[in-house]
Amino acid sequence: MAKPKKQPRPKAVTPKGFRDYFGQEVTQRTEMLRTIADVYHRYGFDALESSAVETVEALGKFLPDVDRPNEGVFAWQEFDEGGNGDWMALRYDLTAPLARVYAQHRNDLPTPYRRYAMGPVWRNEKPGPGRYRQFYQCDADTVGTASMAADAEICAMLSDTLETVGIPRGDYLVRVNNRKVLNGVLEAMGLGTDAAARDDVLRTIDKFDKVGEQGVRELLTKGRLDASGAFIEGVGLSDDQAEPVIAFLTSKADDTAGTLANLRSAVGDSKIGAEGISELEQIGELLAAGGYGADRIQIDPSVVRGLGYYTGPVYEAELTFEIFDEKGRKRQFGSVSGGGRYDDLVKRFTGQEVPATGISIGVDRLLAALREKGRIKSHDTGPVVVTVMDRDRMADYQAMVAELRNAGIRAEVYLGNPKNFGNQLKYADKRNSPVAVIEGGDEKDRGVVQIKDLILGAKIAESATLEEWKERPSQFEVPRGDLVAKVREILDSQD
Amino acid sequence: MAKPKKQPRPKAVTPKGFRDYFGQEVTQRTEMLRTIADVYHRYGFDALESSAVETVEALGKFLPDVDRPNEGVFAWQEFDEGGNGDWMALRYDLTAPLARVYAQHRNDLPTPYRRYAMGPVWRNEKPGPGRYRQFYQCDADTVGTASMAADAEICAMLSDTLETVGIPRGDYLVRVNNRKVLNGVLEAMGLGTDAAARDDVLRTIDKFDKVGEQGVRELLTKGRLDASGAFIEGVGLSDDQAEPVIAFLTSKADDTAGTLANLRSAVGDSKIGAEGISELEQIGELLAAGGYGADRIQIDPSVVRGLGYYTGPVYEAELTFEIFDEKGRKRQFGSVSGGGRYDDLVKRFTGQEVPATGISIGVDRLLAALREKGRIKSHDTGPVVVTVMDRDRMADYQAMVAELRNAGIRAEVYLGNPKNFGNQLKYADKRNSPVAVIEGGDEKDRGVVQIKDLILGAKIAESATLEEWKERPSQFEVPRGDLVAKVREILDSQD
Repeated sequence: MAKPKKQPRPKAVTPKGFRDYFGQEVTQRTEMLRTIADVYHRYGFDALESSAVETVEALGKFLPDVDRPNEGVFAWQEFDEGGNGDWMALRYDLTAPLARVYAQHRNDLPTPYRRYAMGPVWRNEKPGPGRYRQFYQCDADTVGTASMAADAEICAMLSDTLETVGIPRGDYLVRVNNRKVLNGVLEAMGLGTDAAARDDVLRTIDKFDKVGEQGVRELLTKGRLDASGAFIEGVGLSDDQAEPVIAFLTSKADDTAGTLANLRSAVGDSKIGAEGISELEQIGELLAAGGYGADRIQIDPSVVRGLGYYTGPVYEAELTFEIFDEKGRKRQFGSVSGGGRYDDLVKRFTGQEVPATGISIGVDRLLAALREKGRIKSHDTGPVVVTVMDRDRMADYQAMVAELRNAGIRAEVYLGNPKNFGNQLKYADKRNSPVAVIEGGDEKDRGVVQIKDLILGAKIAESATLEEWKERPSQFEVPRGDLVAKVREILDSQD
Repeated sequence: MAKPKKQPRPKAVTPKGFRDYFGQEVTQRTEMLRTIADVYHRYGFDALESSAVETVEALGKFLPDVDRPNEGVFAWQEFDEGGNGDWMALRYDLTAPLARVYAQHRNDLPTPYRRYAMGPVWRNEKPGPGRYRQFYQCDADTVGTASMAADAEICAMLSDTLETVGIPRGDYLVRVNNRKVLNGVLEAMGLGTDAAARDDVLRTIDKFDKVGEQGVRELLTKGRLDASGAFIEGVGLSDDQAEPVIAFLTSKADDTAGTLANLRSAVGDSKIGAEGISELEQIGELLAAGGYGADRIQIDPSVVRGLGYYTGPVYEAELTFEIFDEKGRKRQFGSVSGGGRYDDLVKRFTGQEVPATGISIGVDRLLAALREKGRIKSHDTGPVVVTVMDRDRMADYQAMVAELRNAGIRAEVYLGNPKNFGNQLKYADKRNSPVAVIEGGDEKDRGVVQIKDLILGAKIAESATLEEWKERPSQFEVPRGDLVAKVREILDSQD
């Protein structure tokens, strides 16, 4: 690196809302992404990695989050003598770039185009606890077909993916709803054309998860007092007008047939509503034929998240087991994936409607869930550490680690100041090393090495009273030639 | 996605200097990164993924490239009511972020800290042919030790890595030099303290690869006419003064001992020079002891790339086989990795010197090399395509792909408009599908399916005259129950 200029020392901090990931945090995510990619690939999806940077124009100056248009992206202007450089921005999701890529390369891409993509996205939002401005998404989308078979396939693939990464059946549920049914309801309410009222109703429906049936009823009509006692203005509908929305939100029955029947009455004779119900029916049939029962995937009109910007079916995968939140309260883990059909996205570029549907998996949340359930190792195993008793014989120690590595064993020689041997063992401890190797001049002369089982050693230290431990030695002297064999024996005994 | 606002249609293009990667371009890179990570991990290096965004302050407003300080990064100011937001930038390499991470977390990290990192970096530079503004790096560094054993280990690991990803011994060479030896040479020239003159000499030495010994001699003294006939001003040294530089650059002998002897005479009685030579000697001994001979790693003072900003040993890995460049001229493939010791980087933050050394592998160039040599598949195999003869029986077709996928076979059902069967086969062709499955009403009634070997079919089409092909059928009718078995049989026959 170039020498630093004379200037006050920079602060060694990540920018607000960003963080670093260490060791296992990185490798476990990489492993999960690979597992998910395998499933996507088996389903016929092709990999795509678009650039992290897009023109603001192509990205569209908006986020999926309808409440914050023109916000939420990290953008800058390309340098240009005249100051007329293009504006560029970091992608805020993997869907907008897909639309750009498909519009740009559509003549070379197959139609339909099944693609998966995984990588970081960036949101210029106020960071909060556990909310970072850079996080991973793992998407699969099918572009260029309006067939409900594409939507059913995505739901089935999502179910397979969750089970493949280690969420057992019964611990998750994929729920399916349809935006068109809601539009039908709005029609039935006589709000089919009143854009402002529709938006009010949509915003209210999005609160269903929080305030429940009675809360939504009040918010749609005369308003309500929220928990803090503040009065929330209502939308001002009559009770009769509000009823279809409630009927829609609460139409889930014991089985798909029952749910669909309830929806039919909720949309009355709305054409778009009927279309949406028939789409749900097709998806239900295809999934049933594929053996995906209600224990994995359900039609559930109470799924309202994201209804705002999808144009047809929407999906959400929730983990149904309970965890304890920051405040120690039991709650369901909740959503780890969402998606749906968005038929207008490519149209922005080409003018022609290109139907598309897909999902996005929140990889970091999924990893957190697996850690919660103890389904992935929560501690890193370090390398075997070959200690340095005699700094002039570094070549001897390097030869030992070379032997161990060639045998496929993770190993390293201590590269710090070897003067204080205690520091070397402290280092091995900090590295979670399973084994330390010691060869002093005396051992060298006698052609032996000392091998310390650090895991067993720690156990003995913990429970020194237990005779069973006392009887088992945690340090062994073996002929130099048996180094690799003995280390492997100890590693195997530790698993 | 939110509805686009009424505005002229956006152009569907990547920003200047950026590109998208499709299918195999992505999966082969992912695979290579995984292979490299395995080697790094076996050597005891831990994964680190720092955020892509850093404060400009932490990053330092400079690139490794000393010619363009204060340039080359994509930066923007954090929004802030008062307009006083922090400046943030995309990382331009993985080394500056490592320095920041180590300074920030040094109390929690082991010392020495061996870490590897892989991911995209961004350079705000004029894009050129094959030069993109986003590209992958794959680094390994050891922070917190001045021991030459760390440098030797990095060189050995680089050699192992190249062979593990598929570059055979003999097709690459890791070359090692030392910045301190050059400093010794400058001292011997009496330029030890004259910063300006030193920089002139450094810049000239960096041209050695291009202009050779005589060219450097002229540039150090009276100047020279370049290829275009333009006169390049010389540094203005006397011939005597220039000699040590030439001696340094040309001091490579048949073996390490000879090279070191030449270097000793080049640095005269310079203390720093002697120190650098002793460092090279230690590295040479450790590598020899590890069995890394001159066929893999060599001490080579003609390695000058990057000498400008490293503080000790520098390494470069070159692929030595020849390829044809854009203009069809034979040339060596050249460098795929470089690195060295930089002891001042963490000091920027902490004030204390923290010795560090590491390498960066240019993954995309390495992939290009493997493709050149035909060592990785250059074509993607698509999924088995189950065609749709009867759109009302989509469930039947979904059941077939489910069976194939459950057997681990990549498969998909055709999701486009099934009306024109020719389009379905065209699609399978565009997807490089190995096999197509066909089940019309007639087959359904008879309980059979048609299975087309598309690879064989293409061969037959190409060489229709060859009897051998004519005799082999490329389409088979099998009982529905034998679908998976027959498809696997065909796939196996295609490998």
